Amino acid sequence: MTEALRPGQTIGILGGGQLGRMLALAAARLGFKVHIYAAEDDTPAADVAHALTRAAYDDLPALTRFAATIDVVTSEFENIPAAAASQLAAMRPVRPSPRALAIAQDRVIEKDFVTGLGVTTACYAAVDTRADLDAALAKVGVPAILKTRRLGYDGKGQTRLAKREDADAAWAALAGRPAILEAQIPFAQELSVVLARGVEGAIATFDVPANVHEHGILKQSSVPSGASATCETNARAIAARLAEALDYVGVLAVELFRLADDTLLVNEIAPRVHNSGHWTLDACVTSQFEQHIRTITGWPLGSTRRHSDAVMENLIGDAVETWPALAGEPGAALHLYGKREARPGRKMGHVTRLYPLGGGPSLRG
Amino acid sequence: MTEALRPGQTIGILGGGQLGRMLALAAARLGFKVHIYAAEDDTPAADVAHALTRAAYDDLPALTRFAATIDVVTSEFENIPAAAASQLAAMRPVRPSPRALAIAQDRVIEKDFVTGLGVTTACYAAVDTRADLDAALAKVGVPAILKTRRLGYDGKGQTRLAKREDADAAWAALAGRPAILEAQIPFAQELSVVLARGVEGAIATFDVPANVHEHGILKQSSVPSGASATCETNARAIAARLAEALDYVGVLAVELFRLADDTLLVNEIAPRVHNSGHWTLDACVTSQFEQHIRTITGWPLGSTRRHSDAVMENLIGDAVETWPALAGEPGAALHLYGKREARPGRKMGHVTRLYPLGGGPSLRG
Repeated sequence: MTEALRPGQTIGILGGGQLGRMLALAAARLGFKVHIYAAEDDTPAADVAHALTRAAYDDLPALTRFAATIDVVTSEFENIPAAAASQLAAMRPVRPSPRALAIAQDRVIEKDFVTGLGVTTACYAAVDTRADLDAALAKVGVPAILKTRRLGYDGKGQTRLAKREDADAAWAALAGRPAILEAQIPFAQELSVVLARGVEGAIATFDVPANVHEHGILKQSSVPSGASATCETNARAIAARLAEALDYVGVLAVELFRLADDTLLVNEIAPRVHNSGHWTLDACVTSQFEQHIRTITGWPLGSTRRHSDAVMENLIGDAVETWPALAGEPGAALHLYGKREARPGRKMGHVTRLYPLGGGPSLRG
Repeated sequence: MTEALRPGQTIGILGGGQLGRMLALAAARLGFKVHIYAAEDDTPAADVAHALTRAAYDDLPALTRFAATIDVVTSEFENIPAAAASQLAAMRPVRPSPRALAIAQDRVIEKDFVTGLGVTTACYAAVDTRADLDAALAKVGVPAILKTRRLGYDGKGQTRLAKREDADAAWAALAGRPAILEAQIPFAQELSVVLARGVEGAIATFDVPANVHEHGILKQSSVPSGASATCETNARAIAARLAEALDYVGVLAVELFRLADDTLLVNEIAPRVHNSGHWTLDACVTSQFEQHIRTITGWPLGSTRRHSDAVMENLIGDAVETWPALAGEPGAALHLYGKREARPGRKMGHVTRLYPLGGGPSLRG
């Protein structure tokens, strides 16, 4: 642990939302200070941080001043401009690395990276022109999903193509943005692996949750997933292969589709703590947030042992207004993010229902 | 829940140390903002709070400005000056109440209160003069402990009297401060009850830990305690009787001696979250800190269900320098308080070792 940060040193976090907030809370528990850098107006992470810089993510002078006050930098989202990431990396360790961020920023680069390692994804093709879209449809078939290559999250920037005749409307919706066409997969289950890799290459994964999305936004994550032990082992191995190829430091989330025959396809990767790992806050010895702080500070990884079964449900938009009922529900661990306004589709909080091991709702029918 | 605080409202906390810090972290989890009011220079709680007022606890204008920014006020310690507590209570709900704080501030008033309810304590007598001390020794016997009535914590302000001839030295050490002489109890075990009582009178207690002190400072708390179920039930009932008599709102800790025949004597009460409840952070569905926030905001009590066996050990003074080993110990949940300087006797952090239920170290030989 020669290069480990000592308690009292400062972690810089790019982004001021709920992931930054939960990272800041985990950092505080280990005695670190946190400096939040955020472009947004509503920065709930800053309420639990030592310092806040409010500036654009491409404001290089502000980034330089920020870097001078911190000992390591991480981020709550992958869309850090490349120039900003390399500016920061010249001054302080950036974990995960600018390269990992760059790969995860672009769906085509990401899928090329994954398949280049021999890991399977849904069939896909890059789409830069209207002619590309026709060629992609010929390769991928329907149903398919046309997604912007960059800056998409929670289902934003995505159009479904049920039949080839939907191509014109989908192309128009893109408004000229570079895109990717992906086959829509008839999956049996959505799984994710939340993995951590330390500065010296140690890897730990949490138990694999089963995820349910609604309108492109994660609605629920459950552990145990109900998938077979072999399937979970395979999922963890895929995530480890990706992390090693990235020489990754931090928490990495890998979303997968499980087909009916237990084939696994990588859907996407997120170079950060992930919504499908929020249940670790209440059901594991170490949470994904503490695990991320441990990795980026050069600490040993914590135990990922799970002491409870858990079902995490997001509180999206107005759903946060159910807090009085949730506050009174025995065994429900409530997390509210301190955001000022509950807009539709906005993640306002989550609740994790805990059950004794083996006592949770069964997921495999 | 008509008078419950809504997420986004602000909790004022008097005191900026580790208890205030862990309260602030719990408040953030539920979406509350926190304003810390502290007289001290080193205020680790402020690192995770929305706002800090640094002023003396008897600075009435500063307290008035503070009260105007918050919706409820609580404290991390009992020694709030009476004038400050009533000044605040005139503007905002003070939970626990000024009356509960006043009783717990003075060891004689506290013991009179406890015994007045028919609850047993060690034999004691007030000592204001040298002659009082002789009379007290005649009543209490030796060995005994002479303690200042006010402002003592972590063994400060205490002198042991092994024999009557120690009276002169003990009296000199008091330097004229009002005191109490208490019989030294040959206890089999030290226990504590961490109880929460809500605004509408609902009560919940955590499992009872067994505590070990060293040089007057809590060293270790373990659950399960190894005491009999009947004994734990009796301990909880005593704590509930005290809380009801105080019309208490908040978390209340009651320290008890268990004698060899399972008789229980109340040692002292603390009108706040308590060091012997820190293990609840890692071993229970709801921690004592969240429970305190729930009570003072008018929320329903959370589940006190314990999902793991636990042994909490304080990191006092230089012991915090063992953090690299603790960081690498599987199953050890480490908490560091962000204090700047590790002075002897200063609580710098704690570590809770977690075990599956029934798998912890046994305490009853």
